[in-house]
Amino acid sequence: MGGDVGPRVTVPAALQALASNPALKLLLVGQPDAIQPLLAQQSAELTSRVEIIPAQSVIANDAKPSAAIRQSKGTSMRTALELVKTGQAQACVSAGNTGALMGLAKLMLKSIEGIERPALMTILPNQQKGQTVVLDLGANVICSSEMLVQFAVMGSVVAEEVAKIASPRVALLNIGEEESKGLDNIREAAAILKETAAINYIGYVEGNELLTGKTDVFVCDGFSGNVTLKTMEGVIRVILSLLKSSEEKQTKPSWLMKLAKKWLKKRLMKRFEELNPDQYNGATLLGLNGIVIKSHGAANEGAFKAAIERAVQAVDRQVPDRIAARLNIVLPRSDQ
Amino acid sequence: MGGDVGPRVTVPAALQALASNPALKLLLVGQPDAIQPLLAQQSAELTSRVEIIPAQSVIANDAKPSAAIRQSKGTSMRTALELVKTGQAQACVSAGNTGALMGLAKLMLKSIEGIERPALMTILPNQQKGQTVVLDLGANVICSSEMLVQFAVMGSVVAEEVAKIASPRVALLNIGEEESKGLDNIREAAAILKETAAINYIGYVEGNELLTGKTDVFVCDGFSGNVTLKTMEGVIRVILSLLKSSEEKQTKPSWLMKLAKKWLKKRLMKRFEELNPDQYNGATLLGLNGIVIKSHGAANEGAFKAAIERAVQAVDRQVPDRIAARLNIVLPRSDQ
Repeated sequence: MGGDVGPRVTVPAALQALASNPALKLLLVGQPDAIQPLLAQQSAELTSRVEIIPAQSVIANDAKPSAAIRQSKGTSMRTALELVKTGQAQACVSAGNTGALMGLAKLMLKSIEGIERPALMTILPNQQKGQTVVLDLGANVICSSEMLVQFAVMGSVVAEEVAKIASPRVALLNIGEEESKGLDNIREAAAILKETAAINYIGYVEGNELLTGKTDVFVCDGFSGNVTLKTMEGVIRVILSLLKSSEEKQTKPSWLMKLAKKWLKKRLMKRFEELNPDQYNGATLLGLNGIVIKSHGAANEGAFKAAIERAVQAVDRQVPDRIAARLNIVLPRSDQ
Repeated sequence: MGGDVGPRVTVPAALQALASNPALKLLLVGQPDAIQPLLAQQSAELTSRVEIIPAQSVIANDAKPSAAIRQSKGTSMRTALELVKTGQAQACVSAGNTGALMGLAKLMLKSIEGIERPALMTILPNQQKGQTVVLDLGANVICSSEMLVQFAVMGSVVAEEVAKIASPRVALLNIGEEESKGLDNIREAAAILKETAAINYIGYVEGNELLTGKTDVFVCDGFSGNVTLKTMEGVIRVILSLLKSSEEKQTKPSWLMKLAKKWLKKRLMKRFEELNPDQYNGATLLGLNGIVIKSHGAANEGAFKAAIERAVQAVDRQVPDRIAARLNIVLPRSDQ
């Protein structure tokens, strides 16, 4: 149990997730001395669905991924992934070192056949009150056209199976809508997707369409995907802080005005909260033979609970199996 | 006079700019028949500072830049750039085809010595009530490390001369703050900037820092820069539209509540408007021997006026000369 805070956040979050889902069982991988006290005074019903799996070390958040992976034996992250590999767990949720998690997960669980490299994916709410599947968010800074096509296939499956969108629209992030725009890999991926009947490819989108719902699947390389997601988060945080400061500055409002403002602020915050990084936490590492969810390192209890729920959803919808099945239909197998 | 609408927006915007700046003179380049009627019934004082320069054709917004440039003779865009080249005008402002403008401007005005390729730059307001210089916004989808360093130099000059920031902090956009993150060109640029005493280089920033004021100069390749700016615009538009819809839905509010909401919305809108694409319009094509400002194609009168004011500011601050002078100090000359 890593992350910026460790068990003091992840254990209470786990208990919350157990309380709201009676069918859930959780294996808590980490140092028993740190976990055990946090389970004290909980109901027997909850603790009966928890098992502590001892692991004596944790991969540091600032460790270099390559070195961390070489020295990963006995760490909580590796132990958790081993549980998925051996079928003792159906999913792994981690708030730890992102690079180490991606590398170790790929090493231990292997990519689905037909997927060169896994991608980080999230599902964002959009302006149409729907959902948009966005990937890659930073697993791969350089992407070939083939990888972008694989992301499009994986995103389509998630949009159908998790977001329940029939024939989801797929678009590639670019810096203009004209065919001649952008980088070679994007134009080549566009050419392939246009010829792929099983994908509902609609063309290019620009960054301003991230939240508008113009597309159901928003495909990009990991660098641009990280930039667009982080920019979105930053702009929302700035606006939320403007809302707060605009209230603090007000001097001597009448009590009625104060009440009215409080009520309105609550309404506005509720709308913004949908897009608040604390709420939609949990990026899925997509394309592996197993389910791995990456939580923000700085996730609070509610956010880490959201990441656990993402994992449950992926298990319920059998996302890896469905991706493998779709790849068999959509993409030519390299060994045939 | 191109753009999505043409003279019907740009001429009234020009008249507004003239009215608010008694020292300004404007050459309106385009079809006299389209411009002349829009100047009727204006005061002699205003029209005495306007001259119509006839140009019989306009480059279409959707024209392919390479073809448009080949066939640019006699177009309003080329004529306007010729006026800058010959010194008859001190700056060119265009709402026309971005690719054609960049290509033609480079062809006719040439890059400043030491600049491989010009970059699109804008100045955004930030959370600290300061300003952030952001470049490249899309002129160069692929950038070498040298180009990123040149952008850093140009951005520093603009931050000092236009935004009046002493020793401006310069950062490179990346997907993490650790030195090992990102793409080769970014890491190489970081290594050069660290050794460049004349630049106050502070390291990497992520997309979420675009508006926080953590850096004064935000340097990125044109693809990522376009993605981060467009994402910002999109998120702000979505939030503004949420604010509007949250008001419409409210049924039967008391008159006091209605008043409070109106007041708060006005306050909020004022804060957001600072970041509204209609307000900060006008990207500068930086690195040329001349001043060229690109307005949004869809700019309204106020926004196009803002672009004209950007041009005036760049003229006042002698931006190209100062960039050339700084390059002589900072960067080794290739011919020495």
